[in-house]
Amino acid sequence: VTSTVLVPDDEGLLALAGVAGARPVRYEPGGAWPADGLDAEIVVVWGNPAGVDLAALPRLKLVQTLTSGVEQWRSRLPAGVALANARGAGGAVVAEWVLAVLLALSRDLPGFQRQQEAGRWDYRVTTGLIGAKVLVFGAGDIGLHVRSALAPLQVDVKLVGRTARPGVITMARARPTLGEQDAVVLAIPLDGSTRALADAGFLARMRDGAILVNAGRGGLVDTDALVAELTAGRLRAALDVTDPEPLPAGHPLWGLPGVLLTPHVGTATLGEETRCWAVASQQLAEYLAGRPPTNLIVD
Amino acid sequence: VTSTVLVPDDEGLLALAGVAGARPVRYEPGGAWPADGLDAEIVVVWGNPAGVDLAALPRLKLVQTLTSGVEQWRSRLPAGVALANARGAGGAVVAEWVLAVLLALSRDLPGFQRQQEAGRWDYRVTTGLIGAKVLVFGAGDIGLHVRSALAPLQVDVKLVGRTARPGVITMARARPTLGEQDAVVLAIPLDGSTRALADAGFLARMRDGAILVNAGRGGLVDTDALVAELTAGRLRAALDVTDPEPLPAGHPLWGLPGVLLTPHVGTATLGEETRCWAVASQQLAEYLAGRPPTNLIVD
Repeated sequence: VTSTVLVPDDEGLLALAGVAGARPVRYEPGGAWPADGLDAEIVVVWGNPAGVDLAALPRLKLVQTLTSGVEQWRSRLPAGVALANARGAGGAVVAEWVLAVLLALSRDLPGFQRQQEAGRWDYRVTTGLIGAKVLVFGAGDIGLHVRSALAPLQVDVKLVGRTARPGVITMARARPTLGEQDAVVLAIPLDGSTRALADAGFLARMRDGAILVNAGRGGLVDTDALVAELTAGRLRAALDVTDPEPLPAGHPLWGLPGVLLTPHVGTATLGEETRCWAVASQQLAEYLAGRPPTNLIVD
Repeated sequence: VTSTVLVPDDEGLLALAGVAGARPVRYEPGGAWPADGLDAEIVVVWGNPAGVDLAALPRLKLVQTLTSGVEQWRSRLPAGVALANARGAGGAVVAEWVLAVLLALSRDLPGFQRQQEAGRWDYRVTTGLIGAKVLVFGAGDIGLHVRSALAPLQVDVKLVGRTARPGVITMARARPTLGEQDAVVLAIPLDGSTRALADAGFLARMRDGAILVNAGRGGLVDTDALVAELTAGRLRAALDVTDPEPLPAGHPLWGLPGVLLTPHVGTATLGEETRCWAVASQQLAEYLAGRPPTNLIVD
């Protein structure tokens, strides 16, 4: 038995060439479905749902994302269609971004860059990250990699997850410790329970000079509340995701002191597509062999 | 028996309060020696030798630095005076700076900062550091800490030292591998054998786009040769030390593409003085108990 799998790029054709039972057909994201792919049982997608008409595929059973975040697909799923993500492809790379921005802010590389641009050699002492306390919301692929990356720096890392286990505390236990943290990292999926997790009250509990890192989704943070704290110069922040996103021209976040913005590049290093397809093709191999894919989210 | 120890700051008075046989006397660096310290057997110094007249201390036996680098003291030592440094105080902190700048350049944080200053949200893919090859000249306190800090990122690190041992190769074995490296880190003392180590031939062997990191001393690099490579856009660099230093106004290094400059802040994080005095007071305790200090450099 062979199942048609709609893939959004040529790398997908290659990745699925060796998967038993898959007949990969290339489609153009945002364009019409190809005529020989209308019988697709599976469609593989990147992040942008615009123009991807899932309801036009009558035999569709599974949407497999090439990303970890899936919040834009949940509401678009036709009844009875399953959803699986590419968890595992990007955690180490996003953790590398988290480590990069934590170190950059702790050693004030942005400030030294401004001095360099002004041609000024001004010695200054910075805080450093060694021995700091860091709380990471999210005990998944990203959180675990952040913890191992910070270990050689003797950083005291606590992960926050749904269930308490060694090294992982619950949300309820984490909140009262916000005031002790040198940095708080958001690396948790966005859903009804996490939207605006970092609201005015959450941010107010963070201590002066602490760093908020958002490596998840913009909606995890109440942007207005964060803008207020940054405007007061009370907190620092590194944001790879924003709400709204992309950040529009003239938005106050662009120019506030102590904020480092990157344009959603947490997973964007060389080899990203290959890493995502390695996970996705493994998922589809499981599915086509009659087993539920490991990363199944909705069934 | 009590020995007079001249100390350059109040933290030294505290640090030596508990050291048997030490009578610490505070002096003002660059000023005249205090009258009650002229019988000093030991003088403790920071980095700047200007106005520190060692020859005016007739009973001097040991110069103990609060820094790792000692090259400015060697030529100033009166005959028969020993020299010891504060190796071990700063290695982890300098390694943190090395990790910070390697990650910043690998994820192009300087470029994203310029986009932020221009208010532009431009997604771009960068190289990343995971799985890179890095060669570290120096297998001492800094090099060992750099190696452990890079381990969780699966970086292939080779250290270069005087004698080959597991994980450490000699200078002769290292040179032919320059072309394979994604980054080359200089964390080695400056002396006659290492001056201008990174000369035109060394830099020419490095591959296009590779990163030179100088966490040692400015004199390890032939500045003109580096300026030529950076002007051509062929290499990138992160320099905490320069030759000349401080870098004078109008020097070409300030404005070249792909270079990240910091003003000799490798060890400059909160708690630096305490870390240096912890090592120095331990050294002096050994010396005053009649044992040679571990970090003795010249005897």
